Amino acid sequence: MNSETQPVLIDGQWREASATGSFQATNPNTREQLPPHFPVSSWQDCDAALAAASAAAVELRKLPRQKIANFLLAFADNLQSAADALVEAAYAETGLAKSPRLADVELPRTVNQLKLAAAAVVNGDWVSPVIDTKAGIRSCYESLGPVCVFGPNNFPFAFNSVAGGDFAAAIAAGNPVIAKANTSHPETTRLLAEQAFAAVESSGLPAATVQLIYRTSHDDGARLVADPRNGATGYTGSRRAGLALKAAADAAGKPIYLELSSVNPVVITPAALKERPEDIVNEFVTSALMGTGQFCTNPGMVVLVAGAESEAFVNAVRERFSTAPAGTLLSPAVADSLSSSVKTLIEAGAERLAGDGSSEPNRCAVSNTLLQCSGQQFLQDPETFQTEAFGNASLFVVADDLDQAAKVIDSLEGNLTGCLYTATDGSDEAAYEQLAFAMTPRVGRLLNDKMPTGVAVSAAMNHGGPYPATGHPGFTAVGIPTSISRFAKLTSYDNVRADRLPCWLADKNPTGSTWRYIDGRWTQADVSN
Amino acid sequence: MNSETQPVLIDGQWREASATGSFQATNPNTREQLPPHFPVSSWQDCDAALAAASAAAVELRKLPRQKIANFLLAFADNLQSAADALVEAAYAETGLAKSPRLADVELPRTVNQLKLAAAAVVNGDWVSPVIDTKAGIRSCYESLGPVCVFGPNNFPFAFNSVAGGDFAAAIAAGNPVIAKANTSHPETTRLLAEQAFAAVESSGLPAATVQLIYRTSHDDGARLVADPRNGATGYTGSRRAGLALKAAADAAGKPIYLELSSVNPVVITPAALKERPEDIVNEFVTSALMGTGQFCTNPGMVVLVAGAESEAFVNAVRERFSTAPAGTLLSPAVADSLSSSVKTLIEAGAERLAGDGSSEPNRCAVSNTLLQCSGQQFLQDPETFQTEAFGNASLFVVADDLDQAAKVIDSLEGNLTGCLYTATDGSDEAAYEQLAFAMTPRVGRLLNDKMPTGVAVSAAMNHGGPYPATGHPGFTAVGIPTSISRFAKLTSYDNVRADRLPCWLADKNPTGSTWRYIDGRWTQADVSN
Repeated sequence: MNSETQPVLIDGQWREASATGSFQATNPNTREQLPPHFPVSSWQDCDAALAAASAAAVELRKLPRQKIANFLLAFADNLQSAADALVEAAYAETGLAKSPRLADVELPRTVNQLKLAAAAVVNGDWVSPVIDTKAGIRSCYESLGPVCVFGPNNFPFAFNSVAGGDFAAAIAAGNPVIAKANTSHPETTRLLAEQAFAAVESSGLPAATVQLIYRTSHDDGARLVADPRNGATGYTGSRRAGLALKAAADAAGKPIYLELSSVNPVVITPAALKERPEDIVNEFVTSALMGTGQFCTNPGMVVLVAGAESEAFVNAVRERFSTAPAGTLLSPAVADSLSSSVKTLIEAGAERLAGDGSSEPNRCAVSNTLLQCSGQQFLQDPETFQTEAFGNASLFVVADDLDQAAKVIDSLEGNLTGCLYTATDGSDEAAYEQLAFAMTPRVGRLLNDKMPTGVAVSAAMNHGGPYPATGHPGFTAVGIPTSISRFAKLTSYDNVRADRLPCWLADKNPTGSTWRYIDGRWTQADVSN
Repeated sequence: MNSETQPVLIDGQWREASATGSFQATNPNTREQLPPHFPVSSWQDCDAALAAASAAAVELRKLPRQKIANFLLAFADNLQSAADALVEAAYAETGLAKSPRLADVELPRTVNQLKLAAAAVVNGDWVSPVIDTKAGIRSCYESLGPVCVFGPNNFPFAFNSVAGGDFAAAIAAGNPVIAKANTSHPETTRLLAEQAFAAVESSGLPAATVQLIYRTSHDDGARLVADPRNGATGYTGSRRAGLALKAAADAAGKPIYLELSSVNPVVITPAALKERPEDIVNEFVTSALMGTGQFCTNPGMVVLVAGAESEAFVNAVRERFSTAPAGTLLSPAVADSLSSSVKTLIEAGAERLAGDGSSEPNRCAVSNTLLQCSGQQFLQDPETFQTEAFGNASLFVVADDLDQAAKVIDSLEGNLTGCLYTATDGSDEAAYEQLAFAMTPRVGRLLNDKMPTGVAVSAAMNHGGPYPATGHPGFTAVGIPTSISRFAKLTSYDNVRADRLPCWLADKNPTGSTWRYIDGRWTQADVSN
């Protein structure tokens, strides 16, 4: 092991990893390896983190909720203070634009998520207290133990395993987090963990509330999520790695929330294209190429109906894809995977309208790629044509007619989003109904006249969807307080004496403003005796 | 195949099964086979049921909710009209007392569950509408497609796959049900399905809203729950069969809710025993032997602290167990399984205090069995000592002291319930705290001074718990509206035009009284413009 290899954060100590190897991140703008070495941890590190986390989980249950909220707020403040260094590190490791993306959009979003989580901790908005005074039973959601978080490559801050949405949700529910860094941005993650740990110390939480390892073998990752000491897992990333973790967690009966893959179908009717052709071209191209197409909700597949309007749309997009500069991709692995997915689609019969599919030698980049197939082609092999091409590539599916377009939608797996563009004058409502009927059961979020990128942090947001978009169609990864309940267990208190109840279930409303479902009615009032 | 083999109910027709064999139920009071033959369905029946159910799922989404409510109410009425025949059939197949159990407790409970589900359908209490007017996003829970329900042996009505809690919840969420009968009471299930189907017809629901098969091969069962056309599965039964279904459903990304096994630990402190020894003996014996101990929440394990009080308690219970007549068990399989579990516990070192373990030749019955081990024995092999002995058997674990008792609790798997008996004068609050701290994370429902049998149908009930009690610690199988959300998917409507929204998300409150979370506040009001 390299003597300069970075330490892991276990049980409150930045200590030398028990490592089986090391790795370096790559600067995607140069394809050069970045200097710091990070360890591949052995099971010994996982075991130590699990042991420390279980002890911390017990301690956390004893603490007043305000301490957890204080931690989240202190961490949010720390992130703002460390913004410059964080943005530099993330830029070097991901190639994402420093401004506005990293500094002005993603970091503020991350800070905001932590603050919203802190508010939910204080208000108990995620706890859903239910009180049945007649039966003498009261229930609420509670912490469930250590949570392992595996963050994705495409949001180095906002979905980072040690600062992002899953992290904030798991902590807000009162659980310690064992963060596993995404291997494409370990230095960014290290810096975030430093700020998180400083906040742990300043707010007086158990030292093992936040722990960090960088990488493990696949077997150790599976063993980690299935360990009896683990409570639950949040994972966002590739489908293959996610499914291996899911199999291990499922077999052990451990909840695991995954975001795996999604092509985010968009259907645009001829009437919509006739009405506002330029607007729709602009909206699509902007959404498809934003962040070099590396959003979970990137519109990877557009269903059109054959005809003059669709032809004009295809030509206009082809022109824009061909002339727009290709953005930098997050890593060599993303560039390789994109090239490979495009190849799969072309081998299946898709026609290439833009992009030569080549990967640049001195930068992680693939030319903007636009593919096309017919509805009939798609229906003959829907599995292959649904191959996610993560990055700046989209597939147009041109159906013969609306019925065939609906059949294409009917043949889809679960997706995070589905968009329907129709005429604003309501002249194609029948088409909308048919398409919406096919689309709604297959997506977590249905949009009208709007592209899917941009995932608002709202209580009404569902960043989720049927498998394989996620592992369970009833939960969202974005939106507070809703995302917090993933990392909680439901507990009923039956005939439990008044002075032994969790504060949320006491007769007196603990905050004066927490919403509780008392005898069939949501109220902020105390239980009346 | 026997020419008198009963038909299956598929796509609105009682038709001859595509059968690979047939089976008969056994009268547990005589160990004689009951006359009717029931088919073991081949995959062809499963496939036909899935095809019909997916079509019905689409139709159900188009119907006004009142029709679904009408079905549930009509079914409830039908059950009351058919009460006598149902009670006779269930008595013959399960040996459960006709009165009060079957006629006066379980059937009324089943009727009540259907009525509560109907009310939830009308009021939308399970839908949880969330409206964010600023972001323009609205979300709610919706139907997710056909639901396969596998009912247990111990509640021929209230958890029956074609009439019980999972059935009512799945239908209330707008899903068709493919019911798989429990093989120990097929005739009861057939009669229930007749009433259900009559209600389907009278209320004008799609014919395949309710379908029934009796038995399949294990492979076909696994294929059924994993089929792309299936939406989700509810299973209550043996751990081994449940885990096979879970593995298949998990691999296909299909939600599956299971209730597998639970020993329902009870801890009784010396102070509690000193204070009210007779009451506690009575409560325990009543709870432990009620229904011949065949409740999911039967108190199968009692943790005591060594001393005179515990010794007196043990002796009193031993006396009661030895003199109480042994009730009839549900089936030969239950009797065999109970004998086998008792044997496992004895081989692990448990001492037999009451019961000779023998199974009666002309009746499904095993003498009331009381076993005992020390805390130390338990801690040396917690896995084996947690063997569920489903039926009229309990294990006493006598710990050296309170710390060891807490360690025993700490070593437990997930359970449906956990009970703590302490002194009513509050003199052993420190003991309570220590025990509650260990118990709460491991159970779905924590009780004080009360035995776990008796599962109230309340919005605050959690009939659930960490694995292996169930497959996910966040859901309950009992309690309306909470149990309904298991069979639903979350959908966000983003920028969706007002006239296209589900009624629950319209500006106007669809019932005038549905609780909706609008801009951070639960309210029954309309959205104000």
